[in-house]
Amino acid sequence: MTKFETVRRVADLRSRLAAWRREGLSIGFVPTMGALHEGHFSLVRRSVETRDRTIVSLFVNPRQFGPTEDFALYPRDEAADSAALARQGAHLLFAPDLIEMYPPGSVTTVTVPGLGDMLEGEFRPGFFEGVATVVTKLLIQAMPDTAFFGEKDYQQLLVIKRLVADLDLPVEVVGCPTVREADGLALSSRNAYLLPVERARAGALYRVLTDTARLIEAGADPAGTEADAKRALERAGFYKVDYVAVRDAETLEPLVRGASGGRVLAAAWLGMARLIDNVPVGALSPLP
Amino acid sequence: MTKFETVRRVADLRSRLAAWRREGLSIGFVPTMGALHEGHFSLVRRSVETRDRTIVSLFVNPRQFGPTEDFALYPRDEAADSAALARQGAHLLFAPDLIEMYPPGSVTTVTVPGLGDMLEGEFRPGFFEGVATVVTKLLIQAMPDTAFFGEKDYQQLLVIKRLVADLDLPVEVVGCPTVREADGLALSSRNAYLLPVERARAGALYRVLTDTARLIEAGADPAGTEADAKRALERAGFYKVDYVAVRDAETLEPLVRGASGGRVLAAAWLGMARLIDNVPVGALSPLP
Repeated sequence: MTKFETVRRVADLRSRLAAWRREGLSIGFVPTMGALHEGHFSLVRRSVETRDRTIVSLFVNPRQFGPTEDFALYPRDEAADSAALARQGAHLLFAPDLIEMYPPGSVTTVTVPGLGDMLEGEFRPGFFEGVATVVTKLLIQAMPDTAFFGEKDYQQLLVIKRLVADLDLPVEVVGCPTVREADGLALSSRNAYLLPVERARAGALYRVLTDTARLIEAGADPAGTEADAKRALERAGFYKVDYVAVRDAETLEPLVRGASGGRVLAAAWLGMARLIDNVPVGALSPLP
Repeated sequence: MTKFETVRRVADLRSRLAAWRREGLSIGFVPTMGALHEGHFSLVRRSVETRDRTIVSLFVNPRQFGPTEDFALYPRDEAADSAALARQGAHLLFAPDLIEMYPPGSVTTVTVPGLGDMLEGEFRPGFFEGVATVVTKLLIQAMPDTAFFGEKDYQQLLVIKRLVADLDLPVEVVGCPTVREADGLALSSRNAYLLPVERARAGALYRVLTDTARLIEAGADPAGTEADAKRALERAGFYKVDYVAVRDAETLEPLVRGASGGRVLAAAWLGMARLIDNVPVGALSPLP
């Protein structure tokens, strides 16, 4: 067993990696913004089980937050995260500061037009630019064999698969199933923003998405279910529904009636928390 | 001596590189669009002299040509290029086709805001996006120790240095001096578009840039020299001058009077050919 260690400089990350590479060890990588929960840990365990060494990054990326969003509020507890990662069997935490990731003068931006403009990209302008840029940097910094991302951020997973393919990054991208609370609420660092009364209602998001998927599988017109699902969320106490969308699971274009391989995706506000979630449609819908 | 070889697939490029890496050999890389001339060869020789193995890429990148530009016309002669590269001592030619570089569905784009928007970026919208995207891909594909670019495309050199730093690509970028004809004309594949009568006038571009640099070194206000230089080019037979600009050699912001480390850059049309060139200003102007 290697001792669990934290590095803050790209140069140190690379020197640890180079030593592992020389030993012929395979590298798994789990990029995070910290505030780690069982969703993250499931990715870490998947990496630990299948790769020789597991690196986790912790960086709250300002470039993927809009000016009115929760960058300052976003929960941070590196000590707790670090202790938990050591328990999960991770080998290295890469926790760069802002200057290490974006030295003065940094401007280069990675965009994924189309896939990055719709849904989350429409409601959070600049979000996927921020994600694509930081993930490109992190993958180039760590150059792992495999990187693990949660399906909870489904569109993000597709955007990352797209940029990895398009930029010829020699990295396998693995999407892992969403981890849920007993009432179906997808684990998310932002669930911490929910007041108890809101938390009690939050399970409705998964329930409505699952009901919508079942209706479509039973033959309903995908587009026709979206407005009903939106109303169901509003009735369940979500005060603003950014979107409920039934899409092709790979292209995120509108799903054609009767087609398999769909995904129902939604984003909706409950108090201060903007929750997102998604579920597969159709027996054939493959894991991405 | 390794035998000179041509590969067309990224996978083949990487397998050759991996073998060299296992032998501990250093890799130099010269990306080109073919139509090679002594300017390219000077980069190749610089790589051959300083690195164990030299890879040259040949790819006429459609994404850096505008819809009204000369993509179809751009000179192509792979057989001649390949023979010349073997003579110069290069080891590997990477000549992918369009589908290998941009498989259907490719959308990811790398931009360098600011540096990529001014001068060439202003007159050729999308040009630096195309350059930044293809160079990012090529550097990720080849992951050389060192990549060599000509100072003739000075702004491009700065854009590439910027993206390499910003994306943490572990590649040293080396700029090499412009190679010129006897009358000062910078070597360029596009010089082939010049009719004899135009070719006879083309040396004026370098002459005017050099005169401008000398005036500024003698104390002239940089901004004040630009209009005079433009008129001098028009008098010399250039029918359209896109810009003559006196800039800081690193940021490309307007050069302050009395500052060292400047660069005079210009783009101007002579018949079908859009010629660009640049020269240093000030004894201290460092090579980038």
